[in-house]
Amino acid sequence: MIGFPPSLERLVQLLSGLPGIGRKSATRIALRLIASSEAECGELARAIVDARSRTTSCSICGSLTEDHPCAICRDARRDPTVVCVVERASDVLALERTGRFRGRYHVLGGLLSPLDGLGPEDIRLAALVARTKEGSIKEVILALNPTSEGEATSLYAAKLLSALGTRVTRIASGLPVGGDLDLADDLTLGTALDERRDL
Amino acid sequence: MIGFPPSLERLVQLLSGLPGIGRKSATRIALRLIASSEAECGELARAIVDARSRTTSCSICGSLTEDHPCAICRDARRDPTVVCVVERASDVLALERTGRFRGRYHVLGGLLSPLDGLGPEDIRLAALVARTKEGSIKEVILALNPTSEGEATSLYAAKLLSALGTRVTRIASGLPVGGDLDLADDLTLGTALDERRDL
Repeated sequence: MIGFPPSLERLVQLLSGLPGIGRKSATRIALRLIASSEAECGELARAIVDARSRTTSCSICGSLTEDHPCAICRDARRDPTVVCVVERASDVLALERTGRFRGRYHVLGGLLSPLDGLGPEDIRLAALVARTKEGSIKEVILALNPTSEGEATSLYAAKLLSALGTRVTRIASGLPVGGDLDLADDLTLGTALDERRDL
Repeated sequence: MIGFPPSLERLVQLLSGLPGIGRKSATRIALRLIASSEAECGELARAIVDARSRTTSCSICGSLTEDHPCAICRDARRDPTVVCVVERASDVLALERTGRFRGRYHVLGGLLSPLDGLGPEDIRLAALVARTKEGSIKEVILALNPTSEGEATSLYAAKLLSALGTRVTRIASGLPVGGDLDLADDLTLGTALDERRDL
């Protein structure tokens, strides 16, 4: 049995290791790449190396940046008294797309997860406490995933920060806007009911 | 609104251009890449450039190879009198995986498709005729997709090759092995009935 030439097989194997890419998709992508021009392949190869070497975490908030501090942390128009805490750097982008938040961010880089051996020292909680202790932060908004790990991390962070006298809030859980009450799962609907608001 | 740093954004854009990869998957892959080591990123980048520069088409059969002629064309144990005609180089691998074919291949590199402006001169049909004219080929097996383009190309190739006195066959269409008669589409079931065989 004859397989792919070695260099192509190697590419398929490396691509198969990327998230969401199986052997079939990897083969399709590899065949497309070798059918494209050398310039295009070189461009993608350079983009991979460049992105890896240029992108780092902001030393203040932990979000992805090429400059230090990041564009948000050094933007004087953004309110330094409100900090939104998220799990991953990509969550910052999701919140930025809403256009509703004009404060600063803090990326934890993970959630508390005793089963995976992730404790408070494995995520950027100490840095959050240190930022809060500096005194200018009046409100910390916890915007973590509404999962058990997210909840545990929120409660833990809230305890730490409340002790410093900072207002701690959490983004709302409830029905997705445009969603269908009939299709919502029991937990979401129950939370939406519990967290009802006066109109 | 703040987006990804430029080098990361560039990587996401290039990845989004790959087959089967949308903006969301591209973002996921890019974030994974920048979270992996520089060595791993360099490895993938090199693999892309290497595969593109080393992999070419076999000058005889048109399948993907790093050597000339390819491993199948220069393998004396493989029957040079039977040639299996396929659309793409990846089809050669699919047939090799069956372990049922011990002849040689011919990759057309496309199918006749008047609507897309693809005529006989755009696919490797002349090369197939030339190989057949050399005289050692006794049977040409057409293994093209059972689509309208595949059918049209099969009929066209059969006419050309029959005129040279070569036996021309086509792989069977019918129910997939292990498939369910009840779930087969009408065309497949109809073809399976038309092409029934004596037991």
